[in-house]
Amino acid sequence: MQWAKGLGLGLGAAALLALGIILGHFAIPKNTPSISATQDLDLEILETVMGQLDASRIRENLRELSREPHLASSPRDEALVQLLLQRWADTTSGLDSAEAFEYEVLLSFPSQEQPNSVDVVASAGGVLYSCLRSEENLTGEQGGPDVVPPYAAYAPPGTPQAVNAAKHGVAGVLVYTDPGDINDGLSLPNETFPNSWHLPPSGVERGSYYEYFGDPLTPYLPANPSSFRLDLANVSGFPPIPSQPIGFQDAKVLLCNLNGSSAPAAWQGALGCDYRLGPGFRPDGDFPADSQVKVSVYNRLQLRNSSNVLGIIRGAVEPDRYVLYGNHRDSWVHGAVDPSSGTAVLLELSRILGTLLKKGTWRPRRSIVFASWGAEEFGLIGSTEFTEEFFSKLQERTVAYLNVDISVFANATLRVQGTPPVQSVVFSAAKEIPSPGPGDLSIYDNWIRYFNRSSPVYGLVPRLGSLGAGSDYAPFIHFLGISSMDIAYTYDQSKTSARIYPTYHTAFDTFDYVDKFVDPGFSSHQAVARTAGSVLLRLSDSFFLPLNVSDYSDTLRSFLQAAQQELGALLEQHSISLGPLVAAVEKFEAAAAALGQYISTLQQGSPDPLQVRMLNDQLMLLERTFLNPRAFPEERYYSHVLWAPRTGSTATFPGLANACSKARDTSPGSEAWAEVQRQLSIVVVALEGAAATLRPVADL
Amino acid sequence: MQWAKGLGLGLGAAALLALGIILGHFAIPKNTPSISATQDLDLEILETVMGQLDASRIRENLRELSREPHLASSPRDEALVQLLLQRWADTTSGLDSAEAFEYEVLLSFPSQEQPNSVDVVASAGGVLYSCLRSEENLTGEQGGPDVVPPYAAYAPPGTPQAVNAAKHGVAGVLVYTDPGDINDGLSLPNETFPNSWHLPPSGVERGSYYEYFGDPLTPYLPANPSSFRLDLANVSGFPPIPSQPIGFQDAKVLLCNLNGSSAPAAWQGALGCDYRLGPGFRPDGDFPADSQVKVSVYNRLQLRNSSNVLGIIRGAVEPDRYVLYGNHRDSWVHGAVDPSSGTAVLLELSRILGTLLKKGTWRPRRSIVFASWGAEEFGLIGSTEFTEEFFSKLQERTVAYLNVDISVFANATLRVQGTPPVQSVVFSAAKEIPSPGPGDLSIYDNWIRYFNRSSPVYGLVPRLGSLGAGSDYAPFIHFLGISSMDIAYTYDQSKTSARIYPTYHTAFDTFDYVDKFVDPGFSSHQAVARTAGSVLLRLSDSFFLPLNVSDYSDTLRSFLQAAQQELGALLEQHSISLGPLVAAVEKFEAAAAALGQYISTLQQGSPDPLQVRMLNDQLMLLERTFLNPRAFPEERYYSHVLWAPRTGSTATFPGLANACSKARDTSPGSEAWAEVQRQLSIVVVALEGAAATLRPVADL
Repeated sequence: MQWAKGLGLGLGAAALLALGIILGHFAIPKNTPSISATQDLDLEILETVMGQLDASRIRENLRELSREPHLASSPRDEALVQLLLQRWADTTSGLDSAEAFEYEVLLSFPSQEQPNSVDVVASAGGVLYSCLRSEENLTGEQGGPDVVPPYAAYAPPGTPQAVNAAKHGVAGVLVYTDPGDINDGLSLPNETFPNSWHLPPSGVERGSYYEYFGDPLTPYLPANPSSFRLDLANVSGFPPIPSQPIGFQDAKVLLCNLNGSSAPAAWQGALGCDYRLGPGFRPDGDFPADSQVKVSVYNRLQLRNSSNVLGIIRGAVEPDRYVLYGNHRDSWVHGAVDPSSGTAVLLELSRILGTLLKKGTWRPRRSIVFASWGAEEFGLIGSTEFTEEFFSKLQERTVAYLNVDISVFANATLRVQGTPPVQSVVFSAAKEIPSPGPGDLSIYDNWIRYFNRSSPVYGLVPRLGSLGAGSDYAPFIHFLGISSMDIAYTYDQSKTSARIYPTYHTAFDTFDYVDKFVDPGFSSHQAVARTAGSVLLRLSDSFFLPLNVSDYSDTLRSFLQAAQQELGALLEQHSISLGPLVAAVEKFEAAAAALGQYISTLQQGSPDPLQVRMLNDQLMLLERTFLNPRAFPEERYYSHVLWAPRTGSTATFPGLANACSKARDTSPGSEAWAEVQRQLSIVVVALEGAAATLRPVADL
Repeated sequence: MQWAKGLGLGLGAAALLALGIILGHFAIPKNTPSISATQDLDLEILETVMGQLDASRIRENLRELSREPHLASSPRDEALVQLLLQRWADTTSGLDSAEAFEYEVLLSFPSQEQPNSVDVVASAGGVLYSCLRSEENLTGEQGGPDVVPPYAAYAPPGTPQAVNAAKHGVAGVLVYTDPGDINDGLSLPNETFPNSWHLPPSGVERGSYYEYFGDPLTPYLPANPSSFRLDLANVSGFPPIPSQPIGFQDAKVLLCNLNGSSAPAAWQGALGCDYRLGPGFRPDGDFPADSQVKVSVYNRLQLRNSSNVLGIIRGAVEPDRYVLYGNHRDSWVHGAVDPSSGTAVLLELSRILGTLLKKGTWRPRRSIVFASWGAEEFGLIGSTEFTEEFFSKLQERTVAYLNVDISVFANATLRVQGTPPVQSVVFSAAKEIPSPGPGDLSIYDNWIRYFNRSSPVYGLVPRLGSLGAGSDYAPFIHFLGISSMDIAYTYDQSKTSARIYPTYHTAFDTFDYVDKFVDPGFSSHQAVARTAGSVLLRLSDSFFLPLNVSDYSDTLRSFLQAAQQELGALLEQHSISLGPLVAAVEKFEAAAAALGQYISTLQQGSPDPLQVRMLNDQLMLLERTFLNPRAFPEERYYSHVLWAPRTGSTATFPGLANACSKARDTSPGSEAWAEVQRQLSIVVVALEGAAATLRPVADL
């Protein structure tokens, strides 16, 4: 424009001409995309959102969400569905639309009439000792009919005794959490909740013992009332034998009285005795040596209604591109940490965005979909049914899935799990947000002190974990191939060996627990809300999608090196060359690097929105190219050839590694060695196919 | 713009201002999409292409293409690869780029040293009669080393005699084409080629007897040299017993001498005798009753290199959207009709478009990919390997696949097979092109006289056939879910009962055969070139994709009615309701109708190119929503829940119909009935998922 302006300065007529030119250029809408097609991330809006995310509001959300137990499909769970719908329909802070989607799913509950029990019984039949059937009511919140007693969901009913186990080769399973694993060894009442954040002696971790995820009766189909359901006899993945969890105070009574030789050192714990392997009780202990442990499990399977709640903010420019943000709603008991700490953040974030939306201040470039999943604790059921029902639509249009389940495990550092394309956007967000602790570090600078790795490209960076199947991101990454992440604040692993926060899945995971011990002041909740909110806005609003697909090169190179080191010699012995895999990784690297340069060039110019859309499609769909629904026929839902479960501990190509570990001890020419070659080809083809999608779009 | 112009008329200064406005509007590229983002089909270009497609050029192409036999992987097949590369690299009429992609695939050939044979042998062992080992050299083109002798590709070697068959339950298979089925009963030399288009008595139809498609050793993987290959022992789909095709002159000698009771009336043919079922020869015939038929098959499997040739015209606006146009290159012998009549059209069409391209007159909105597939005759191998290698890229980006294999079977009428979304664009093209015959009908008006149906939406319209697996469209529609079509000119079914043109797959399918009998003057070839060319240009150049997805409603409704009529009562007996299927079809219809209205509204305004892109993505990807790779685990590649193979003759939902036909005679509660319910759910979920993708993009 400069030349036209300059021309107009000295000459009247020319000035008029120039004015006309300017008017013509700016004032008349062309029969082409309006200026809004280039709508980009607005840093002021981002700043506003960061500033408005309110710790005390999150605290109030948490208080309300965790006020009552809200087990999946319970009345309180249903009440929370209504709460979410109400919030998201609010005229001043709600979203464009909100809806509940109900499924009919198979859940498992303990019987109210016949409580599960674990007893020591004398050979004559008298009960010598009974394990607690519920946790001690230490804060007044562990009693009442809505607190589901400890149980192992989907464990079959039955009443095994150890004597039967020995004779028939069947047994029950008792599960407990050792204070050595969860409490850094502490176990006394005055050392544990409500006196500290540690697990009280009567605390019992509930959980689902179902092997897969999704509704057990409707694999690959949404659990609508009319959907085909497997006959119970054909369901696989349930535990084969009765199982029951108990607290460590009961475990101590059983374990410290066992007879037999000492368990290996790695099996010893902090119950204060030598752990022995049995069989039977020791003669000098609390029970006659011929006493038995009797486990009675009366769990029942029930078809129940469970809802997802979905709330949508329609995108202004690309409404057909979805950024998904979700967490489950259901808890085992009050679930203040799990999952309400995440839901409290979800509600605060949606309130802030909804308010900007309703004011007319802002509308995202792409659509944002907020989700509150049902029945996650039973096996990611709500989210899985959602992906089954909307498979095509989601796979075609979803930019990324952002999961914030437990938002705060503890308040030392950010912790992110995700696939490589989300690394850069998480870094961008984390660098701009102050760390909640003392000092003036950014979340990023604090994070890198706790989890880091040396990247050949960037040097020392925070280390992202990989996504297993621990929360609702699983169906999105493994079944749909959508770039996903899980964001939380967590503890300093150098200061505690606890595998998770101590009251996990117990009746002690309450509002006061969070308020007093996990995150007093809720600044870590606020930090997670800001990080997740910033990532969400960057994904929904940036003209250029902030998915850095070239960060997959780093991962592939390290997978390749691990494969060469761990499997190379073995494969060579069997005349299997990793050459094609090396070539495929190199092709990917080259294509990703060239695409990166293209992006830089495009960003320096004034790119056409269609051009950027085409590029963004390449970025969005890269993760999809790693899906192969025929790669692992025995693994339900797992189709991502890079992130399917690995049996070994080395981070490398899972199909290849698993096949090698099966073939290792078979003879050349076995089926197992053919499978190694098949898996090698599968990953080579996936990488070459991925590289092909990154190359200039009109090349082959 | 009118107000600005008007303002300038009377006033000098205002005129300058107005000029400025106009200049500013048109001359300065805005920091937004350039005007070209709305590039649309140019009817003048279309007219030019229609006018330039030259029958005599097609004829010359055909002469060159069919000059020599060009069996897959033969030297002449390789020479044609070079011919295609040369044409597509031509500086004045070539494409943007062209490349050959070579695969290493398993083919099957007769042995040169040990010819396959079919003999009648006396019980003492002497040969009483030998079937011809090659076709008679009637035109000088049926001799020579490049004419592959008749054989059944992939039939295993072996030398069965009927006596063994009886004893061991194994046998060889002899196959022939009856003059009643192919020649309207004519069988004398003076009634057949080279005196007419009918099959001479010695003519033998070659073919692949492999059950699946794609390279047999690398299912789901591209047949690259390093790819995993099945052990031959694990390959399924080859015929289990030796097989050999023979001509009807030999078939007559064998069949007319058979003993036993008469075959059913439907099995009788035009060989001039009563067909009997055997066993053995009749005592009063040409052979002693204890003579045997000895079939010797010496076919060999060989790994061979076979290439696809791909030529690309880069799209000007949306280069990442591909319109694919393909045909195979390999023939059994000279293959003038099959496939060279299609390749001749392909070359002429690419020449015309290439010339416009090189002149700078035209560049399509979307990319056009021309393909010459290898080894189709052995089982669609080249096209299948291509879809395996570029699975993700093709599935994400391909608008449609247009197949022109045999372009002219005969010159009575257009014949199109395709999925519903292509119906409207084919109709649009066919309405604008004159029919090649006498009179001044359009191709459309002529077509409707031969193939028609009554559509509840449109009234009487030409009838599109459905796509089986007869040519290279199969992997595109069944494996990738890409809207596909096959276009040809064909005969008047009221005038001949021939199932295909009579010299199909024989050494008599030569240039002269086409030139004299199939399409003298090549006006039908030209008609196909124009139709396919017009469809191609409409798909590549139209701003709004001309895929009418609402035409699927018609199909779904008729499938539903057929299911209700044929299966409703049976299902009701087993308490299986079609209600959810009815509801799903209704949802689809409603969503498709609403989308149609949205399109009309959009077309009346000045839509933003991004808006149109989003709409076009819905249209392009609809076909993909019908794919379910887990629906038919036993059907290799078939994933399209509407077009998978049906065992019954009723046009309805194949998974449901097949499952019903298996369950029909089983008891309630059987696995087969569970499969019926599973298939019902699969199609319901697919239809609901499809409907969801047609609804406004920010709805759920």
